[in-house]
Amino acid sequence: MNADAVMKDRLEEEMLAMGRAAKTAAAQLALASSEQKNKALLASAAALRRNAEGILAANAKDLEAGRAKGLSAPLLDRLALTTERVEAMAAGLEAIAEQRDPVGQLLAEWERPNGLKIDRVSVPLGVIGIIYESRPNVTADAGGLCLKSGNAAILRGGSESFQSSGAILECLREGLAEAGLPAESLQRPSTTDRAAVGHLLAMSGLVDVIIPRGGRGLTERVMRESQVPVLAHLDGLCHTYIHAAADPAKAKDIAVNAKMRRTSICGTTETLLADRAVAAEVLPPILDALAALDCELRGDAEVCALDARVKPATAQDWDTEYLAPILSIKVVDGLEEAVAHINRHGSHHTEAIVTEDQAAAAHFLERVDAGIVMHNTSTQFADGGEFGMGAEIGISTGKLHARGPVGAAQLTSYKYKVRGTGQTRP
Amino acid sequence: MNADAVMKDRLEEEMLAMGRAAKTAAAQLALASSEQKNKALLASAAALRRNAEGILAANAKDLEAGRAKGLSAPLLDRLALTTERVEAMAAGLEAIAEQRDPVGQLLAEWERPNGLKIDRVSVPLGVIGIIYESRPNVTADAGGLCLKSGNAAILRGGSESFQSSGAILECLREGLAEAGLPAESLQRPSTTDRAAVGHLLAMSGLVDVIIPRGGRGLTERVMRESQVPVLAHLDGLCHTYIHAAADPAKAKDIAVNAKMRRTSICGTTETLLADRAVAAEVLPPILDALAALDCELRGDAEVCALDARVKPATAQDWDTEYLAPILSIKVVDGLEEAVAHINRHGSHHTEAIVTEDQAAAAHFLERVDAGIVMHNTSTQFADGGEFGMGAEIGISTGKLHARGPVGAAQLTSYKYKVRGTGQTRP
Repeated sequence: MNADAVMKDRLEEEMLAMGRAAKTAAAQLALASSEQKNKALLASAAALRRNAEGILAANAKDLEAGRAKGLSAPLLDRLALTTERVEAMAAGLEAIAEQRDPVGQLLAEWERPNGLKIDRVSVPLGVIGIIYESRPNVTADAGGLCLKSGNAAILRGGSESFQSSGAILECLREGLAEAGLPAESLQRPSTTDRAAVGHLLAMSGLVDVIIPRGGRGLTERVMRESQVPVLAHLDGLCHTYIHAAADPAKAKDIAVNAKMRRTSICGTTETLLADRAVAAEVLPPILDALAALDCELRGDAEVCALDARVKPATAQDWDTEYLAPILSIKVVDGLEEAVAHINRHGSHHTEAIVTEDQAAAAHFLERVDAGIVMHNTSTQFADGGEFGMGAEIGISTGKLHARGPVGAAQLTSYKYKVRGTGQTRP
Repeated sequence: MNADAVMKDRLEEEMLAMGRAAKTAAAQLALASSEQKNKALLASAAALRRNAEGILAANAKDLEAGRAKGLSAPLLDRLALTTERVEAMAAGLEAIAEQRDPVGQLLAEWERPNGLKIDRVSVPLGVIGIIYESRPNVTADAGGLCLKSGNAAILRGGSESFQSSGAILECLREGLAEAGLPAESLQRPSTTDRAAVGHLLAMSGLVDVIIPRGGRGLTERVMRESQVPVLAHLDGLCHTYIHAAADPAKAKDIAVNAKMRRTSICGTTETLLADRAVAAEVLPPILDALAALDCELRGDAEVCALDARVKPATAQDWDTEYLAPILSIKVVDGLEEAVAHINRHGSHHTEAIVTEDQAAAAHFLERVDAGIVMHNTSTQFADGGEFGMGAEIGISTGKLHARGPVGAAQLTSYKYKVRGTGQTRP
């Protein structure tokens, strides 16, 4: 056996041992009280604040290595921590602590004619594998949500943020220790070896669910290779549709915010649809505002005719998630065409209608097939925090288990408790 | 290209066309009213009764072919239909019609400080692929549950029941037609070619979930190969645990029923645990009753010492799902050992404790990690019908999405409807 093969085996051994330890920790975490879990979260937040300097020093090492490797400016920005970002992580953990405990909730109860009493009660999923890229704050957010929901986590972050994530994880483990919870509740591989991902995806007896957080390449690889069920966010190709009965001022505010507030998040609007009846009236002020914010505009022939700054859109534009200050704009022939366009080209993530016509809004919310459908508001609200979930581990674009923002409550399963008095089945 | 390859391509084309048609039908079904869906279910039931003779004739062809192929007696029994079994299918569809519509339920609603109103509303999953073996009644049960939950289904039954399933499907499609619902709501491949399964498992853009119903070999293949999320039942290695504070009469009734009522179903008890303190008192009458029913008994040394009919169990017995009149029996040293044994050897399906001690029961229900945990009743109640769900498409042994019996309600997802008055995200 050559040296590489030995290393490989060692890593596999390490990952399997980690999985077994996580499973044991998960059994303890599942029984932890709300108070104990919240204590761990608050102590973790305090540890983050207390160790902010050390975290920033670890981050400086990552940034230095990243610059030496020639990482792009946006990647370096995602990687960079500041005192404020550390504070935001700590505040995030405190917000998670304030949420209701999602475990042990009585979800339903009924009695059968034979006297059997059936309760459906929420329980943790078990062991969650999180695979993410360079954002180090995912360590705190994901770790905190797993802890709140009584799950053990194996956190496999990107190699670029290895030092930063390690420093953050140490703070969370301080919090666990202060609350008397097992340190193995939150673990990570000891190296940046990419083979760890493959091992994690194969651990179907030890890991209950894999959550990838990152670009499409990572997510697709995880979905293709995993032997463990995956909860994933794939695309966010979101639309805002200005209906004929839209209030023009609301339409402008919403469209500009939906596109430009932050262009890199999954809830950003990529395509604007406008009813033919009002396009000439409602679009020009929106195009002006967007152009003033340096948004590139790509439209169909009718939109190009309205404004010389609009470039002609190609067929591909209607299927493109830009995640950039670019907007495609199309005129449609009313509600039905808008719904059909969205159901065909959208990614079933978040879709909005702007209208004062309640019946049209109801029709849209009913017929558009997406995790989140909105009326008279910005698609940028597609976020677990904005939904009041305290934080999110991501937004699921699948329909199974969880759809939309995945917070602590979505990281639970349930069990049935059946109580009898000696009943046997005839 | 040779003739085989052409055939293969044709089947793939057929399956893709079926998937596209199912997706279109699903969009219509999602909007169908409860009345319309129930009308289709009741009309299907009536069609089954009306066409019972034709169904039995089709079944006779399957049985003849099966005997010619040398199918085993249990397989032929599973395949065989009788007037009573047709009536049971019809009654099953009527029971499904009586259930509450699982679609369009308001699951949660709240308002954010910024005035956004958020509703979580249940919606169908979309297109469900059902892959099953020889039981022809699955066609009616699974088809009915998919219809009730507003999902289109592609039903790929075993080749042994091809004629029977076809005749049953015709009845369901008569029901769809009478209710004005699209015929493509329920479809199946035109041939028994096994390659259809592979195509179905690859249709990740068209099929939303795959549900395998059959033996472990089928289920494992589906879980391994599918590019579509799978909702599956893997094992049912269930235990009944007789606690020191058990009522001996209840313990006997429950243990005998849990093992012997039907030994081939997933909820059958495979291992009986008994506390050492009461084993010598409580086990002998149970062993007598089981022996009288021709149940093979395999026990640890203590159990063997109690009864000469008990053969020594091997280590493998504690991990074996017999699905046969065989029971393994073990003496344990109290509640903790019982819970540990079950969590280690059980399949997280259904686990029961018999005791009059409420605290011990609560401890067991809390700590045993299974989809269904029971107190003072028979594990044979692990069944969607017995839970009051009208029918079940199977029992999920996974923790994601659905755990335990999968009825119509478990075949739904949800969407968030967010209503604003012009809010933009700061």
